[in-house]
Amino acid sequence: MLHINGQRLLADLHALAAIGATADGGVSRTALSESDRAGRAWFRQRAQDAGLRSSDDGAGNLSAVLGESGPTILTGSHLDSVPDGGRYDGALGVLCALEALRTIVEAGIDLPVRLEAISFTDEEGAVFSMLGSRALTGSLTREALASAAGMLGAAGLTPDSIMAAGRDARDYLAFVEVHVEQGTRLEQRGMDVGAVTHIVGIRDFWLTFAGHAAHSGTTSMDRRADALWGASAFVQAARSLTMDRFSPGVVNCGSLTVTPGAHNIVPGRARLALEFRHGTAAQLDEMESALLALADDAARQHGLTLTVEALGGVAPAALDERVIAAIETSADALGLSHTRLMSFAGHDTQNLSRFTPSAMFFVPSVGGISHNPREFTHDRDVINAGNVLLHTLLRLAEHSPQPPH
Amino acid sequence: MLHINGQRLLADLHALAAIGATADGGVSRTALSESDRAGRAWFRQRAQDAGLRSSDDGAGNLSAVLGESGPTILTGSHLDSVPDGGRYDGALGVLCALEALRTIVEAGIDLPVRLEAISFTDEEGAVFSMLGSRALTGSLTREALASAAGMLGAAGLTPDSIMAAGRDARDYLAFVEVHVEQGTRLEQRGMDVGAVTHIVGIRDFWLTFAGHAAHSGTTSMDRRADALWGASAFVQAARSLTMDRFSPGVVNCGSLTVTPGAHNIVPGRARLALEFRHGTAAQLDEMESALLALADDAARQHGLTLTVEALGGVAPAALDERVIAAIETSADALGLSHTRLMSFAGHDTQNLSRFTPSAMFFVPSVGGISHNPREFTHDRDVINAGNVLLHTLLRLAEHSPQPPH
Repeated sequence: MLHINGQRLLADLHALAAIGATADGGVSRTALSESDRAGRAWFRQRAQDAGLRSSDDGAGNLSAVLGESGPTILTGSHLDSVPDGGRYDGALGVLCALEALRTIVEAGIDLPVRLEAISFTDEEGAVFSMLGSRALTGSLTREALASAAGMLGAAGLTPDSIMAAGRDARDYLAFVEVHVEQGTRLEQRGMDVGAVTHIVGIRDFWLTFAGHAAHSGTTSMDRRADALWGASAFVQAARSLTMDRFSPGVVNCGSLTVTPGAHNIVPGRARLALEFRHGTAAQLDEMESALLALADDAARQHGLTLTVEALGGVAPAALDERVIAAIETSADALGLSHTRLMSFAGHDTQNLSRFTPSAMFFVPSVGGISHNPREFTHDRDVINAGNVLLHTLLRLAEHSPQPPH
Repeated sequence: MLHINGQRLLADLHALAAIGATADGGVSRTALSESDRAGRAWFRQRAQDAGLRSSDDGAGNLSAVLGESGPTILTGSHLDSVPDGGRYDGALGVLCALEALRTIVEAGIDLPVRLEAISFTDEEGAVFSMLGSRALTGSLTREALASAAGMLGAAGLTPDSIMAAGRDARDYLAFVEVHVEQGTRLEQRGMDVGAVTHIVGIRDFWLTFAGHAAHSGTTSMDRRADALWGASAFVQAARSLTMDRFSPGVVNCGSLTVTPGAHNIVPGRARLALEFRHGTAAQLDEMESALLALADDAARQHGLTLTVEALGGVAPAALDERVIAAIETSADALGLSHTRLMSFAGHDTQNLSRFTPSAMFFVPSVGGISHNPREFTHDRDVINAGNVLLHTLLRLAEHSPQPPH
């Protein structure tokens, strides 16, 4: 059975981690920065060294390509990191893609498809979140780009070049991404591979509880309309409700501003950030109704008014069953255990899923530590990631119908 | 039975309210401002018009005095207001004191004591909270004054002059203050007069709940150490505990800062202001133990650490039973209903209570509205205030032992 060159993959990870390395063992390779450009140059060279063609597009997406023409199977992730991030997030998926293509080249396998190992621009959103995968899938507008145009221009990307990076979905057969889990479900269940069935949707709100600012001495407890009483009752109730009724969905109240804001003034106003995530639009709708009803109750109970401000959210993405099956069959063939789960973080795959049949899989992160220099995945799991990706690509290539194009 | 001249008292209130008047019917006469100086000049003139001697001291305390020598009974309040405050807070107590002395002069009553109607400097703390009553009672240090020295100097007050304003307690028999309630207990109980038994003590803390900032998607609910969960659980529990066990004591969480503070980051840190008030040191001690134990529980329950930072508080003041009895007997004699209560706001009386036997009484405020242009007390209650004060002073003067001096 064909295997990737695990030591070469680990050596690549090590070499890439030196670019933008931080003193504490992490990396800072934020998109469009000098270290990001250095990481991309290194990747281009590694592709060429392997006899692959390198190419980039007007949105800064950078690819190693195997095959001159034909329908394309796309695989990859991102080379950029958050500031002071870890060495696996994104890098693993790009380097496994490169290694899979190299392995296929070396094995002399002739596939009926074109394979493209891609690094998407700015997944982490240093300038414009998921710029590359949004541009490639044609889900950007010039208006959306306007606010970031200055910073993008400094990196040589123009609205024209970015809009021109949109591709024709009819040329594509599938997309697959491998990523570290950034959580502990695989570790806790003792599983090698997690096949992602959904990437959760996200809904964001501001909830403003308004009562009456008052003297904290002369206003007796039973005559107060304390906005923080309402907000804190909601935080408690939202936590319980979500754990009881919506697991594995999650809720977060990440910000709270209390005004006027003094020891001796009863809070007149409390502005609370509300975010929740779940796998399907139906589940998100149900959470939204239940949580906003709780907020109403909390306000009413404490004599407050409630104002709900809906912010933009992210639609959930259901991944492709055929690509998921290819991942699972590959894991089985390699003797690796696997489970299905949702991704609670956003990934480029969510944009690709609306463009071509797509899926992704996770390998374990120790302790789930993410966006942190201490992010770590064992060598064994890195090599598993490469092998599962290799066989998933082979399976998709061999069993793919020709595109309707 | 002797009565004050109610119409003259109301006219004085009206005339004083024109000094620093705001468009919406309130007053802005913050201490040491131009309008405060104008209010003081007006008061000095009114005292002289009434045949009283006016005097001031190095802390800016301004008095109308009846009697050349002998042990003194002090009465008064403050002419300064908060910015955009009401016309009764403080002013009522100074003008009732002036009116009482005027009435005694006109009635030709010869008392064995000296009577002093005083306006204390900066009760509201525009520059230095309760500067006048602290200076007079010798409870200031030069160190405490240092931070405010610049602004005080601009008003002609120096640390030397302020420290020299301390008086000899042996020259004083008693102090009594009348004030609007700034609450609704008298209104709710249908009472004319509230004899204050205690001025509550105040204890202030910062409570910091610390957990771990984390990704709001990939960190499952049961693995979070969300600092806001702890803080909100405490806010809820502190409210219930105080209402159940410590009424009429009060608790307030007036400020809360959550960090890092984003929709998609689980709060790592929540810094909460805690203030509580009760009538005696024993009750404050009991509240402190119970509330800090609740905070500990809330932190423990959510996997957080708790840091408690005690800030300066205000000691409670138990008022003098003999002066309270004089107030109650006077109210009875005037056919007015009365009740006993605590003051949940600070007043100059709390400083005087550590200097000479002191008490204060309240008359009703409509709706308890305070520090607001809509503050209002009915004419009838203003006149009751003057009459009760007059008879309290007469009673204290007639029944006072000579001071040991």
